[in-house]
Parts: sequence; C-alpha cells; structure tokens
Amino acid sequence: MSSELLPGIVTDTIASLSRLPGIGPRSAQRLAYFLLQAPEHLPRELGDLLMRLQAETELCRICCNICDTQPCALCSSRDRDRSVICVVEEPQIVSVIDRMGQFNGLYHVLHGTLSPLDGRGPEDIRLKELWRRLDVGGEAEVREVIVATSPDLPGQATAQWIADELRNHPIKVSQLARGLAAGSDLEYADDVSFRFALEGRRIL
Amino acid sequence: MSSELLPGIVTDTIASLSRLPGIGPRSAQRLAYFLLQAPEHLPRELGDLLMRLQAETELCRICCNICDTQPCALCSSRDRDRSVICVVEEPQIVSVIDRMGQFNGLYHVLHGTLSPLDGRGPEDIRLKELWRRLDVGGEAEVREVIVATSPDLPGQATAQWIADELRNHPIKVSQLARGLAAGSDLEYADDVSFRFALEGRRIL
Repeated sequence: MSSELLPGIVTDTIASLSRLPGIGPRSAQRLAYFLLQAPEHLPRELGDLLMRLQAETELCRICCNICDTQPCALCSSRDRDRSVICVVEEPQIVSVIDRMGQFNGLYHVLHGTLSPLDGRGPEDIRLKELWRRLDVGGEAEVREVIVATSPDLPGQATAQWIADELRNHPIKVSQLARGLAAGSDLEYADDVSFRFALEGRRIL
Repeated sequence: MSSELLPGIVTDTIASLSRLPGIGPRSAQRLAYFLLQAPEHLPRELGDLLMRLQAETELCRICCNICDTQPCALCSSRDRDRSVICVVEEPQIVSVIDRMGQFNGLYHVLHGTLSPLDGRGPEDIRLKELWRRLDVGGEAEVREVIVATSPDLPGQATAQWIADELRNHPIKVSQLARGLAAGSDLEYADDVSFRFALEGRRIL
C-alpha cells in the first residue's frame, strides 16, 4: 500500500530499523510486522531496553570498555594477570578474545584505529587513557602490551604507532602472530597471509 | 568475555534482539554494540517507537489490516473499487500487492491460514469478519472475492474453504493464476509450478 496509508508509527519503525547495520528496507519491514504481531511484551521489552541502553552504560575509566560499574568487572577482578594489557579496537573484540579462554590479562579498548586518510589521529581514539595506565604512577606493574588490532592497514598503523610511542619505555610491545589459519588449506591461502606465514616461519 | 562480565542491560538487549526472526546470536551482538556506540538518539528513538508500536495501532474493524484510524485509510478511501475484495494472509501482503499498482479494490486480512495439522480452524483466522462484509446488510456491493493466499497447502486449503462457503452466494470467488513466473527460465522451473502452468495452459 502506498506508504501514506500505513500508520505513521509503522513507517517510522521501518525507517528506524533500516538504519541498523545489515538490515535493508525489506528486512526492516519484515521485522516491523513481526513486532506488530508478536506477543505485546516482546516489542515493549526490547523498546524499554533500547531506551535505557546508553543511559545505563558507560566506559570504564581505566580500560574504556563498556561497563555498568566503575571500574569495570574485568579491571576490578582479582583473578586477572595485571602485568599484561591486550589492546583492541572495539568493545566486542574483548568478548571475542575472552570467550576463547586463552588470555587472562587486562584489556584496553581504543574505540577505533588511527587512519590519516579518514582524518582519525591519536587524539580521536583512547590512546591518552592507555598512556595513563602505563605511566609511572599508573598501573606500574604492566610489563607487556599485546596489540590485537585488525590485520588491515589502519590496524597495522595503530599497532606501529603504539610500538613507536613506547620505544623508550621498559614495557614490551607485541602483536598477535599472523600466518595461515589453523586447519586452513594452503591452496586457498591469500597472498598477504602467505607472506606473513613466510616471514614468520619457524625453524623446526 | 564471560557474559557475567558484560553489563546486564547489554546481555538482555542481545537476548531480546536474538528473538527477532532472522537475527541469530552473532547478529544480535553486532546490533547491540552498534546501538551502544551509535549517536544516542538512534537507540532512544527506536526504543520509543517499539514501546508505542502495538499500543498505537489496531486492526481495522472492516478489513482487519493494521491501522491507526477506524476504519483504515484504505477502507475509507473514495478512490477504491468497492466491488472487489482481495483476501490475503498477512498485513504485509497488502503492502506487496498495493505497491504493484495493479489492484484498486479493497482488502481483507485473514491473519493466518486454515491448517488442521496445526490445529488452526476457521474460528482462528478473520473469516467471521469476511462473512460479515459479504452478508446482506454488509458491504452489499461486493461482487468478487479474489483469494490471494500463498500457493502452498494451507493457502490452498484456505482458498478452497472460502470458495466452498460462498458456493451458494451470488459473489464470484477467484484465485490468482499460477504458472511460470514472467522472465523465468523453463530449465529451472519447479515441478509444481510446471504442473500449474500445464493445467492452466491457454489456447493461442
């Protein structure tokens, strides 16, 4: 039906859902009709959560991860190794890495990468907060920073910047290894991964 | 991170988003992080719309489509042909058909199909409301009912039920034609469509 025949709140909901990543106009319409016809508590609960989502969360003043206590549960945990900080681009990477159960240190969330082409410099991401953690008088026990930015150009530029800034600092700066993914088929390896694998080869 | 380290409102939002059709746990997490970091008005506006969505809409007392006026804009329009009613399963089909601009009559939304296997009988869908429109004293000018249910078993059962119920009624009951989709390749036609196409063949 011509959209002016749809109730305004329905077209507004479709438009608002279309703004979410990965949701086109067709999916947005399907979701809106689902929510219109679902048990009433479903859209009401989701709506209530979305209304409160940003107001009831903040960034941890230490690691800049999303949290609802200050400092966050990770930064205030006694079970984590406080001598190593894993630096990630976005909060969701903290979930990804922690789910693997391989890393027991602390995190630092940059909320972005350096990208001169897009006009994002060091002051646009949470680097100041990282330096503060590493400075004398900060979390003085930190011995290593593992930079876990993405293996793309901005991620690499960010890792390099952090390494350069900490060059005259006693803290070790490392980066996650790159190479062939476990279980992957060499036949289908991309050339960049192969170059990393070759450069990083180990003597057996 | 172990989920107990995520703020409760974030895990609740991820769980609530996962209940939407076509959105798995990974997409739900991606959407939640997007909404956490989006400009604040975005989640607030969507949340507000979802809170109000069902409260501010209702079903048209004539055609049972979703509306915010009684009767709905379509049923009260003077530009529509009131002698023909197109019967559809769900409100979104009204949008689909009306967008094509080929049909200028009225609609009737059943909100489901007959499906004895799932225990859905005539009283579970909006058939009573359809009979009322066709009865003497109702919209007496209706001359044809076009049943536009889906070309599957419940859709076909529903169409047949409507045709049988109106057998001794002066109103004509028709069904959308089935066959090969325009522009489709015969090589890839499914057997059911081909059977419909063969049965409905026309003399040239």
